[in-house]
Amino acid sequence: MRYGIIGTGAIGGYYGGRLAHSGQEVHFLLHRDYDYVKEHGLQVDSCDGSFHLDHPLICRQADDMPPCDVVLVSLKTINNHLLPSLLTPLLTPQTQVVLIQNGIGVEEDVQRLFPDVQLVAGLAFICSAKTEPGHVNHQCYGSINLGNYSCRDEQKLQQLVEDFTQAGIQARQVEYYEARWKKAVWNMPFNGMTVALNTRTDLLLQNAYTRRLIREQMMEVIGAAQALGVKNLDATFADKMLETTDAMTPYSPSMKLDYDFGRPMEIDYLYSRPIAEARRAGFHMSRLEMLEAELRFLEAQKQTS
Amino acid sequence: MRYGIIGTGAIGGYYGGRLAHSGQEVHFLLHRDYDYVKEHGLQVDSCDGSFHLDHPLICRQADDMPPCDVVLVSLKTINNHLLPSLLTPLLTPQTQVVLIQNGIGVEEDVQRLFPDVQLVAGLAFICSAKTEPGHVNHQCYGSINLGNYSCRDEQKLQQLVEDFTQAGIQARQVEYYEARWKKAVWNMPFNGMTVALNTRTDLLLQNAYTRRLIREQMMEVIGAAQALGVKNLDATFADKMLETTDAMTPYSPSMKLDYDFGRPMEIDYLYSRPIAEARRAGFHMSRLEMLEAELRFLEAQKQTS
Repeated sequence: MRYGIIGTGAIGGYYGGRLAHSGQEVHFLLHRDYDYVKEHGLQVDSCDGSFHLDHPLICRQADDMPPCDVVLVSLKTINNHLLPSLLTPLLTPQTQVVLIQNGIGVEEDVQRLFPDVQLVAGLAFICSAKTEPGHVNHQCYGSINLGNYSCRDEQKLQQLVEDFTQAGIQARQVEYYEARWKKAVWNMPFNGMTVALNTRTDLLLQNAYTRRLIREQMMEVIGAAQALGVKNLDATFADKMLETTDAMTPYSPSMKLDYDFGRPMEIDYLYSRPIAEARRAGFHMSRLEMLEAELRFLEAQKQTS
Repeated sequence: MRYGIIGTGAIGGYYGGRLAHSGQEVHFLLHRDYDYVKEHGLQVDSCDGSFHLDHPLICRQADDMPPCDVVLVSLKTINNHLLPSLLTPLLTPQTQVVLIQNGIGVEEDVQRLFPDVQLVAGLAFICSAKTEPGHVNHQCYGSINLGNYSCRDEQKLQQLVEDFTQAGIQARQVEYYEARWKKAVWNMPFNGMTVALNTRTDLLLQNAYTRRLIREQMMEVIGAAQALGVKNLDATFADKMLETTDAMTPYSPSMKLDYDFGRPMEIDYLYSRPIAEARRAGFHMSRLEMLEAELRFLEAQKQTS
């Protein structure tokens, strides 16, 4: 299949790179890195085996990209207002768009912009960073879960899973809404708390007070998901997430990196949207609402300083 | 009456200073400032009229202080473990001890140390700071509410109110438990939030998100107090506190100053004790429990850094 990558950073560069390395036709959209990659190619350092693409198919503008079978969107949600110009040139009626983005409500909003497009939720479990131009550093994990949101061609979605698998990426289909909320169980506590307390995942879990708080916040997400009808999600999942995080190397979630580097934080889809959805179902995530307020305050202070 | 001051800082220096200035016999316990005050006296710069005590009655050790009719204790609660040695020499069976300290549960614990002592809760509404040795800077407000905790001599308590009044201090008797919780309505949100977000009262109230959060936290305190049987406390008090704070000059509460200067924070009596009391009554202050965890984390990080 022909792939397009919108957002060639830590995520898009890694998954797109692996697909290209496995022989797929992959077109990357690049802005700042274009000249560097044109000359030097794309380097992926990976715990699962490093590789280099000498001459990846790259474009500086979406208008120059061909129609694609599958588009991986790995922009920050902060930039989703750019999608009408970035995504439209790549679309055919058959195109599947995989949103590898954080939070709750992203598919809903993108579908509103493109009522007929076939959307797939992409949930990446990966520690990866773009360290320099044309240089992706994949540290650990790397699987991707795919949840059908509005995809009409089940066979093509299955093909996508197979292409990922053949490229050396663990991929599987999951139930979209359940998967989004499961990811929120980790994302909502850790992204915000590392910013609010200027710290890392390991230190939050080593302190008895914040460890308990993190678990309480996880239980708020689980309570919200249950109120919204999500099945297969209870306290055992919170404990599993705590164990998984204990086993991780000290980690700064994406929101912490965004904050530290002065980039806008994805507060809307990581906090405001799930909080609003839960409230509509009569469930209040008090601690996470407090965390949202703290993040909004910190963001506003940063802008005025 | 003969007064003793344990903790001659921003609070004890101000109230004790005013009492001495009005002609009362006031004995001050001083440590670090002793030599300075011995030579230069005690200076009180005050919005209600500045004054200087040339030769205040000062002691370097509690053992050198005489038995007193009234002792004002304005130590940080962090140092209450010192009370057996600091307070005992000043006590007679008739002595009234006024605890001008922050939080919930202080009287209970001090009474446990001194089962027979007559205790009064002192709730100071004052912006005051000790800026240099022997130098108190009283910026605004200054009233004190006195709540009878275990005082057997009502007449002497009335005399205390009169002595304060004659010294130019607004003083009145209040119901002890209600007064402690009313003060917590302001103290619990603002002390911790200025630390957690490294900011000031005015900036917290100017941001729509944190303004709402502060009000929600105030409502948690009010809910806890109601669950514990406190009367005359509802949402109108929260709104009044917000208005009062809007009218204040930008302010750093005592916990913020403690944190910034590397001193231990009064987390026990300002957070853990009221949170535990509320829980025993079946009321959970979720947001303030979260704030407590954040403060415990920040304190632990500071100690290891």
